[in-house]
Amino acid sequence: MEITTERKIVRYQSGQFSNIDDMVAEEFPLTVYINDIEFVTLVCSPDHLEELIIGFLASEGAIRSYSDIKSFNLDDRGGFCHIKLHKSIPTDHFQYSKRILGSCCGKSRQFYFQNDVDTAKVSMSKTTLTPEQVSRLMIEMQTTSTIFKETGGIHNASLGDPDGTVVHRGDIGRHNALDKLYGYCVQNNISVRDKVLVFSGRISSEVLTKAAKIGVGIVLSKSAPTDLAIGLAHDLNITAVGFVRGESFNVYTHPWRITED
Amino acid sequence: MEITTERKIVRYQSGQFSNIDDMVAEEFPLTVYINDIEFVTLVCSPDHLEELIIGFLASEGAIRSYSDIKSFNLDDRGGFCHIKLHKSIPTDHFQYSKRILGSCCGKSRQFYFQNDVDTAKVSMSKTTLTPEQVSRLMIEMQTTSTIFKETGGIHNASLGDPDGTVVHRGDIGRHNALDKLYGYCVQNNISVRDKVLVFSGRISSEVLTKAAKIGVGIVLSKSAPTDLAIGLAHDLNITAVGFVRGESFNVYTHPWRITED
Repeated sequence: MEITTERKIVRYQSGQFSNIDDMVAEEFPLTVYINDIEFVTLVCSPDHLEELIIGFLASEGAIRSYSDIKSFNLDDRGGFCHIKLHKSIPTDHFQYSKRILGSCCGKSRQFYFQNDVDTAKVSMSKTTLTPEQVSRLMIEMQTTSTIFKETGGIHNASLGDPDGTVVHRGDIGRHNALDKLYGYCVQNNISVRDKVLVFSGRISSEVLTKAAKIGVGIVLSKSAPTDLAIGLAHDLNITAVGFVRGESFNVYTHPWRITED
Repeated sequence: MEITTERKIVRYQSGQFSNIDDMVAEEFPLTVYINDIEFVTLVCSPDHLEELIIGFLASEGAIRSYSDIKSFNLDDRGGFCHIKLHKSIPTDHFQYSKRILGSCCGKSRQFYFQNDVDTAKVSMSKTTLTPEQVSRLMIEMQTTSTIFKETGGIHNASLGDPDGTVVHRGDIGRHNALDKLYGYCVQNNISVRDKVLVFSGRISSEVLTKAAKIGVGIVLSKSAPTDLAIGLAHDLNITAVGFVRGESFNVYTHPWRITED
């Protein structure tokens, strides 16, 4: 399926109205059922849908590997996917947005959703990058992101290592782009511990948590992190790098992974 | 509460690492209980929390006016809000992210969540703007958005009319900024039908649906709309204007509301 489409629009420029054709991003609702129970509706760009679903299930802890899936039926016209797992999953997985109660809130850094506690890992990655590698990974991601330039509506993300980009995905939804990357790795049994996540959008706590679930040690962003994301990155031993623009950037946590040596 | 905070970071610039202080955006989890049942956890910038909650409840159809609220207890340190309504609300309101099933999907434009069907309205607004008013409303919003320049992490939104901006709100969450505006109007009993929504982010279907719930007739964005949002704007009689930059912009739907006359 195409992730962009052409639309007739009215442009106002230099004091004049004109009728033109323009490209806009598609936005596609995709509802996932696990063992016949409605699990989630993801609103996404309609490509790499199998990766998206598998990455989402893995990051929510519903599956641990590709082999946990017994059957996978995707209706990519209607936007429905019916999945059977080998195991039954506890009903509290269907409450993945339930907030954790207790002493967790308002003071120290913490997860606020139960499933994040179960699946986000403290990074053991020993991968380091030089400043030049930081800049190059961001430039590679931006060069690949041609759709963004066409429509202005896509978040882009890639996984790379010190040698360069390994895989790139885009989506109108921030988290979806990350889930597609994760799904690619789960499907192809690729280790992510020593990879670097490169992202076009802000590093929110959700993005940082997703990075921890994927298992990377370094997150590079063109944009800003939030304070909560910085706190989580500190606790999860993740190096958060923001405002990577040209040859400058900010390192918010664990700066030992960014080094000239 | 402050919506930004200072952090010690490492900046790399002109080939040098240096330790500096920088401002980052706060990110705050706020859990809302209605009649003792957990309704939602909003992750937000911690200001105007009462407006945020009231706007969210109104846009989800849980309340119709401020007087539906019997009691409102906000713990803005812990991030919890306990609300009692005069009426009991049906349990299906607690499934507001359940997808609608049926013939709605993949072909024609549609809502995909049940509560949207209940609360989004076809716009009856007769408000029109000249190109100059379009540009001026966007410039006013950007001028007010000083926090964005400091932290790079805030979505900004305002409600205005042909004479200028009425109210401005910012939030790390796209929808939260809109809910704060809506909550402000509900609390102060301000009619929104003839207002214009001005937004810093993309017009996704969720943003467009939120605009329809608020009841505006024109949405101005600095960025792009998605195809699904354009379809919804068409159906809901909303004028969607994107890429408002300087004195140029694109009109995607119902261009009669943007006129020199």
